[in-house]
Amino acid sequence: MAPSSSPTLRTTSEADEEKYANVKWEELGFALTPTDYMYVAKCRQGESFSQGKILPYGDISISPCSPILNYGQGLFEGLKAYRTEDDRVMIFRPDQNALRMQAGAERLCMTSPSLELFVDAVKQTVLANKKWVPPPGKGTLYIRPLLIGSGDTLGVAPAPENTFLIYASPVGDYHKVSSGLDLKVDHKHHRAHSGGTGGVKSCTNYSPVVKSLFEAKSSGFSDILFLDAATSRNIEELSACNIFIVKGNIVSTPPTSGTILPGVTRKSISELARDIGYQVQERDVSVDELLEAEEVFCTGTAVVVTAVETVTFHDKKVKYRTGEAALSRKLRSMLTNIQMGIVEDKKGWMVEIDRCQGW
Amino acid sequence: MAPSSSPTLRTTSEADEEKYANVKWEELGFALTPTDYMYVAKCRQGESFSQGKILPYGDISISPCSPILNYGQGLFEGLKAYRTEDDRVMIFRPDQNALRMQAGAERLCMTSPSLELFVDAVKQTVLANKKWVPPPGKGTLYIRPLLIGSGDTLGVAPAPENTFLIYASPVGDYHKVSSGLDLKVDHKHHRAHSGGTGGVKSCTNYSPVVKSLFEAKSSGFSDILFLDAATSRNIEELSACNIFIVKGNIVSTPPTSGTILPGVTRKSISELARDIGYQVQERDVSVDELLEAEEVFCTGTAVVVTAVETVTFHDKKVKYRTGEAALSRKLRSMLTNIQMGIVEDKKGWMVEIDRCQGW
Ligand SMILES: Cc1ncc(COP(=O)(O)O)c(C=O)c1O
Ligand SMILES: Cc1ncc(COP(=O)(O)O)c(C=O)c1O
Repeated sequence: MAPSSSPTLRTTSEADEEKYANVKWEELGFALTPTDYMYVAKCRQGESFSQGKILPYGDISISPCSPILNYGQGLFEGLKAYRTEDDRVMIFRPDQNALRMQAGAERLCMTSPSLELFVDAVKQTVLANKKWVPPPGKGTLYIRPLLIGSGDTLGVAPAPENTFLIYASPVGDYHKVSSGLDLKVDHKHHRAHSGGTGGVKSCTNYSPVVKSLFEAKSSGFSDILFLDAATSRNIEELSACNIFIVKGNIVSTPPTSGTILPGVTRKSISELARDIGYQVQERDVSVDELLEAEEVFCTGTAVVVTAVETVTFHDKKVKYRTGEAALSRKLRSMLTNIQMGIVEDKKGWMVEIDRCQGW
Repeated sequence: MAPSSSPTLRTTSEADEEKYANVKWEELGFALTPTDYMYVAKCRQGESFSQGKILPYGDISISPCSPILNYGQGLFEGLKAYRTEDDRVMIFRPDQNALRMQAGAERLCMTSPSLELFVDAVKQTVLANKKWVPPPGKGTLYIRPLLIGSGDTLGVAPAPENTFLIYASPVGDYHKVSSGLDLKVDHKHHRAHSGGTGGVKSCTNYSPVVKSLFEAKSSGFSDILFLDAATSRNIEELSACNIFIVKGNIVSTPPTSGTILPGVTRKSISELARDIGYQVQERDVSVDELLEAEEVFCTGTAVVVTAVETVTFHDKKVKYRTGEAALSRKLRSMLTNIQMGIVEDKKGWMVEIDRCQGW
């Protein structure tokens, strides 16, 4: 071993220590592993966001009378950073998350960061936490931008201040399943209604589904599939991902008409499916059609593309195609090959984190 | 003037200074005037709440990865403390707020404080902030209990920790109106859907209505009246209070079947209306019936009982009875007379803040 007084001769483990945080990458699931830094910017009502700060990751200080604590005035986003085999760090379509946050801010009467500020802030957060981006094939760095109503307001009203915060955590697989998800159709609770907030990534769409999700998981299901609140006839989405059904050459997914989240993965997978000759239809999909599909799969930043193995609707349980023969397998490879830099990104989806800024 | 070195002879202004905080009571609206103390208790998942602490009022520290900031996992309550002419401080039916928080916690998979702990914590908070309880007739001390999902959880799941916090603020009138409210019926947005969280005081029910409310207020309306999401035919409630219609001897209000909040004032006013010979019906009330009513009024802790002067539905604007002749005026007096200790509380609704605990 080289003497520690010789700065030019470093051991592999020392180099590794600098390059990577001390994480058991193989054991990662979808849970928080706190990283070193977070990004924070604040903006008063009527003003616009300017450059925030990279701060050590840790608890934030907030008023008990803030709109996020009292009235659920908050939005979040989720995207990932990937480490390629040739050691570049890339993020996937951050502009899409920026635009979705803007749409959400408009719906909740909040002030959103500009697209440029959003993307720059995500880059800064990843760069500051670069050693937490898992080695290729061992996971990804999940990035969580938040926009929360801060300041004080006793009555229900737009927030006097908005805080834009980004933190990150290395993650592994969202679902620990081998062949595919086991879904339960929820016929008691709905996730969203027309004229509500289902079409934006508002924090208010999530705590209301915890009960269904928790009950379903306790009965051995992987996730819940919600039906539309108006008719209970059409499928909408899961607690945190979109759904597709496949029959022959046709791939169908519910339309983004206000009650489901317009997923970035949903959009990307639709494009990839068209590229390989499938017809992709965005339209109402009834439970009946779902039960007669050949294949069903889900898409989302956390789940990527995951096959659904079974759907349970009341007492009926239907099994779908999974494994090598499934379209979802092919689409997942196409997407992750782009994300991991294994195939060329002809679509301009990947954004590289510049080394220049302080590296 | 007595010399300040004589502790037994105090001037009126010094005594007043001790008894009352320095507030211009006449100028109070429904906005935060920070008081001295707040109550805070924490409880880990699977455990139950034990006695919390009275702390100086101020910002709290919370994880960026907490369920309240990311997933809207939070409930709130609202009740008031009243100062009577003979200088007692009373709170109104705190047990009802405790029970409603428990129902909400059950719906959001949270841990709620017991009824006893809740009521005791409210009392402690009022006691600690006693000098902020306005003089009789000059306002009330609004008390805001919060139950929020704290701790860290990256995925959508029950919170690993719950924080129960109470703060308080002296308040005046919620609406600055002379004769009655001008309501606009919202036919674009709904507040709640069946199987959602409309029946509990979840924070997730409020940020989604800010846009409607803000737009209505910008057009000169006092508040929004929401219709049911299923049919858009029946009236539900306002952004933060319940609604009643009066025709002849019949007082009607929408039923608490999951999409409206079971208001404590609603329940109390129904009882008072029955006491004076009205027939009170809890049933679906259509927009048509609303437009044909003789009188319309709203109830809530913040608004107490407030007459509605006009309702605007699309291009139609209807005017209702207000003023001395209105039932709402009578019911409001009956209620506030009990709350202010002007008439005897035969119903056991008022709870006195004990002087014994440290006073
Ligand atoms: C409700 C819901 N649907 C769908 C998605 C998928 O969106 P995306 O592909 O942008 O991650 C998410 C978030 O990840 C979600 O929370
Ligand atoms: C939506 C909503 N409806 C009704 C009410 C009235 O309830 P309470 O009379 O218990 O204050 C409130 C809260 O104050 C509310 O937020």
